[in-house]
Amino acid sequence: MTEITGPEIEEAAGRIAPYVRRTPVLALEPGAFGLRATLVLKLELLQHSGSFKPRGAFNRILSAEVPAAGIVAASGGNHGLAVAHAAKRLGHPAEIFVPRLVSPVKLERLRGYGAHVRVEGANYAEALAASQKRVAETGALEVHAYDHPHVVAGQGTVGREIEEQAPGLDTVLVAVGGGGLVSGIASWFAGRIRVVGVEPRLAPSLHHALEAGGPTQVEVGGIAADSLGASRVGEIAFAVARRHVERVVLVEDEDIRTAQRALWRELRLAAEPGGATALAALLSGAVAVREGERIGVVVCGGNADLAALA
Amino acid sequence: MTEITGPEIEEAAGRIAPYVRRTPVLALEPGAFGLRATLVLKLELLQHSGSFKPRGAFNRILSAEVPAAGIVAASGGNHGLAVAHAAKRLGHPAEIFVPRLVSPVKLERLRGYGAHVRVEGANYAEALAASQKRVAETGALEVHAYDHPHVVAGQGTVGREIEEQAPGLDTVLVAVGGGGLVSGIASWFAGRIRVVGVEPRLAPSLHHALEAGGPTQVEVGGIAADSLGASRVGEIAFAVARRHVERVVLVEDEDIRTAQRALWRELRLAAEPGGATALAALLSGAVAVREGERIGVVVCGGNADLAALA
Repeated sequence: MTEITGPEIEEAAGRIAPYVRRTPVLALEPGAFGLRATLVLKLELLQHSGSFKPRGAFNRILSAEVPAAGIVAASGGNHGLAVAHAAKRLGHPAEIFVPRLVSPVKLERLRGYGAHVRVEGANYAEALAASQKRVAETGALEVHAYDHPHVVAGQGTVGREIEEQAPGLDTVLVAVGGGGLVSGIASWFAGRIRVVGVEPRLAPSLHHALEAGGPTQVEVGGIAADSLGASRVGEIAFAVARRHVERVVLVEDEDIRTAQRALWRELRLAAEPGGATALAALLSGAVAVREGERIGVVVCGGNADLAALA
Repeated sequence: MTEITGPEIEEAAGRIAPYVRRTPVLALEPGAFGLRATLVLKLELLQHSGSFKPRGAFNRILSAEVPAAGIVAASGGNHGLAVAHAAKRLGHPAEIFVPRLVSPVKLERLRGYGAHVRVEGANYAEALAASQKRVAETGALEVHAYDHPHVVAGQGTVGREIEEQAPGLDTVLVAVGGGGLVSGIASWFAGRIRVVGVEPRLAPSLHHALEAGGPTQVEVGGIAADSLGASRVGEIAFAVARRHVERVVLVEDEDIRTAQRALWRELRLAAEPGGATALAALLSGAVAVREGERIGVVVCGGNADLAALA
């Protein structure tokens, strides 16, 4: 079985430290959001490129020999932005494959990082296939969005940081797309505290995999699809989650929108839907709170559409 | 001369601790925003009601005997929101006097806190006069937006916190409206580090006062007017600033807009114009950076118009 160990995450933390932000945590007052718990928010939306994704991207790139052909990744979303940012920062050329439905705003941001953007395929799977064909042709380094040990170890540094910054948590809630973040964090804690995954009901890749006994293809959609809409959870994520994720809960799009609005109203945080999904599990009651429980909530992305939030 | 002492600020910190958030700081990577300094942002926009104002409001209210008539304040902006929030939290009735030009969004937020909103006067000065008339009639407790020792001591807790969270700063940059925040922070540091005030050129109340040798009436306008548009700086602020504020620099509205956009682009922080004004002094070059300087920047408000930022 694939394992990501504490020492691998420690190593990742040292490797990426010059390039990523140690994002702050915010401990909320008891009773915040009407809950009987103490919430600690990990403000990972303040990370470079607006999500946790640079942690895995930097760890992957810095662990490899990067050929002259540079770096290739597939993603029209946060992973693409993170890889483009990391490649620019480290001085490598990057090609980012995005599906045709990518938003003009994200295209512009990707180009702003100087990446070569290739619009190919109707969805993420097709863009991924095109990117892998390109890798086979040029020998470029592929940076997968989640299913690579160095990527998962990089995302695991979020767990390491939150434990340092907020010791004594009982539970951590983490949104799940392809599973890189939740499996990184669960690998770090390795059962020492409860790690709960939260998925949109309309993008339930890990939930289905755990029921089916292995990663399966699922239909994905809904308001968080651009960040959590992986149609198949990673093999590593599945293996880690089966051991170290206490459970995976599902939330409705409406709950996600409510959580997004609550983060703005109470905290002036403009999280994207995927970034508000972990909190949605608490506000909707999908995760019941025990009296006095100390709960970490990873606010993992801030690439919000401000016009929609306004 | 009016002085606000370190012990008064310590006392304020203890008094308000159960009611305000200890907002996090974010240390940016060297070279962030293309500057040769190390920046530490104090994320006070994550405070209750979206700005630093509850610190002063809670300290003022908790230091006084609140009569049955409750609390009165004048402000169509962040101070009004903070007083309405504090009054609700502490169980006192509140009347907030706002000028006729108040935005519907802010009116709605004020009412959301359960405050009794009185729309009176064409500008802040007229709303203030109406509020003072009301205080004379009912005996309610007046919570001034800046010119009261307990208000200034409350705002000074921002200085105390930033020193604890980011020891060894050389300089702190603070936006100036009526001067409550800058004088609170300058009182805390009392010359131990450089405190620099930053004002919009279109709302230069402290700058003019320092030139004139005392608070004077100035014309105010521009994009930050709803938070920094006090037409006359406080007497306390003036007295403290003359001793402990190294200097006051002016920035253009365009610089403020650029800083606001940079905070969103680089950090996904949706600061309001007044909240981006301190950073504007660095990005515009109004404050020159010394090589290796450690600079604290107070991001003091997040009641942004998301539609305008989008």
